[in-house]
Amino acid sequence: MTIKLSNTENVQKFFQEASGFNNDLGSQRMKKLVNRILIDTVKIIEDLEVTTEEFWKAVDYLNRLGARQEAGLLVAGLGLEHYLDLLLDAQDEQAGLTGGTPRTIEGPLYVAGAPMSEGETRMDDGTDPGTVMFLQGQVVDVDGKPVAGAVVDLWHANTNGTYSYFDTTQSEFNLRRRIVTDAEGRYRARSIVPSGYGCPPDGPTQELLNLLGRHGNRPAHIHFFISAPGYRHLTTQINLSGDEYLWDDFAYATRDGLVGDIRFVDDAAAAKARGVEGRFAEIDFNFQLAPALTPEQEAIRDRVRALSN
Amino acid sequence: MTIKLSNTENVQKFFQEASGFNNDLGSQRMKKLVNRILIDTVKIIEDLEVTTEEFWKAVDYLNRLGARQEAGLLVAGLGLEHYLDLLLDAQDEQAGLTGGTPRTIEGPLYVAGAPMSEGETRMDDGTDPGTVMFLQGQVVDVDGKPVAGAVVDLWHANTNGTYSYFDTTQSEFNLRRRIVTDAEGRYRARSIVPSGYGCPPDGPTQELLNLLGRHGNRPAHIHFFISAPGYRHLTTQINLSGDEYLWDDFAYATRDGLVGDIRFVDDAAAAKARGVEGRFAEIDFNFQLAPALTPEQEAIRDRVRALSN
Repeated sequence: MTIKLSNTENVQKFFQEASGFNNDLGSQRMKKLVNRILIDTVKIIEDLEVTTEEFWKAVDYLNRLGARQEAGLLVAGLGLEHYLDLLLDAQDEQAGLTGGTPRTIEGPLYVAGAPMSEGETRMDDGTDPGTVMFLQGQVVDVDGKPVAGAVVDLWHANTNGTYSYFDTTQSEFNLRRRIVTDAEGRYRARSIVPSGYGCPPDGPTQELLNLLGRHGNRPAHIHFFISAPGYRHLTTQINLSGDEYLWDDFAYATRDGLVGDIRFVDDAAAAKARGVEGRFAEIDFNFQLAPALTPEQEAIRDRVRALSN
Repeated sequence: MTIKLSNTENVQKFFQEASGFNNDLGSQRMKKLVNRILIDTVKIIEDLEVTTEEFWKAVDYLNRLGARQEAGLLVAGLGLEHYLDLLLDAQDEQAGLTGGTPRTIEGPLYVAGAPMSEGETRMDDGTDPGTVMFLQGQVVDVDGKPVAGAVVDLWHANTNGTYSYFDTTQSEFNLRRRIVTDAEGRYRARSIVPSGYGCPPDGPTQELLNLLGRHGNRPAHIHFFISAPGYRHLTTQINLSGDEYLWDDFAYATRDGLVGDIRFVDDAAAAKARGVEGRFAEIDFNFQLAPALTPEQEAIRDRVRALSN
């Protein structure tokens, strides 16, 4: 028979003490959170008869997860980051905040402080032999009016599926830029077509996904933060049409309204007009920003990010 | 009003998918565990209205915890390791397995493969100017009969409260030894009196303890694994009398029956008889081993340990 100690007075009192309930120092909020986590943890141990061997494997896993800095990757892969989007959507709906381009997960690979330019930019440093991609679009409000001066902060992987900063072989801020929209709310970027992304095959996230019988692949995609005074900050991505993982994304980021239709153009005259040679690609994608009801809604939500203060 | 999505069919189905329920690969056990952890996590988020900022702080904390390899320290400090002892005690009681020296937590600082000797040993390399300690005792069975040939695998901190291997300034296996008991079940060790131990003050474990209003100190103590054919493996510690943290151990390892009475001797003749100069200390501690009912009970429980295969 399974033994249940978690509801005994002794064990309840013990974890209250361990959570700092018996002192007046520290953070009341943290004490409440930690106590709930501890009690739920021991209920899991009891209900599923977790062995000490399984417990210590989990502890070792946490050490290895952090040593590889993969906690952000894991919460994306287990769907917790997408769940937070569902929760924010439900909170918005309850508050009557509807409209605008859907949000989707940020992922763990943003780097703050990318070079900023007006209206247009080139994102790649020219070293990646990928297909040239012309990405453009307009930022509008919920009535379709252009939003001039919006900051389109975008980042994407190279043709190996890796990101500058985390992939130290790439130049600084390669494939990371901020573009301020012009008077018509337009942004234009020349870059290269990104590749999909796979979890590091020897890392702890892929190790757990394997035990769940799941792959760790993402479709090719481009990340965006879009912000403008008076509008709600938007964290989103466009996932590229035609990718085999478009609707089988291990991080569950693909959403209706966020599929970017990529067109490959094999037309020498069109290439010449664009100033490139050979095949190139085009993506048009417009973003609709919802009005901010409070100044807080204009700002990105706090999270530890690379090079962020 | 708080929004609860965790019980909706959509979210339940989503986390079943994320846990790999929709495929036949991987480990059924791991899928069940992960799904329970995910559902409980989102219930905590909903019940305590965890903000996205708090969520991402927790993710960053996990990365920092693992980067410092402190997951084992944290589960000791939050009482989960002691809880596992309470659970094993209750399982033993239910199975009618009583008697023997109490178990207590292993902690995260064992290193496999310490030098082995017969009957007695010196544990310190002579570089630590701590007080000389003579530790001795007898390993007996539940009837009080000596257990010859038992392996007493013991390890403790130096006068800085640090352990060899993890403290790379100490010599290899300093203060770590294995002693095989003699025909009378006796073991004898010369060493130095260990100091108590504090969590690294700049580490993530102490950071959380601070938020809980708790200190991160342990009393001076000596760790033991004791094993012998036919007997249940014993993981325990003796915590030294007189230490200010004896009954205020951040890791909750001190238990009735595990207090080691340390006697300091200031007697030149006694010192000379022992072959030392000045003040020295003595500890006598006997261990009682319970019979193993299965071969598995003779073995130490699996856990990732330093230098272990």
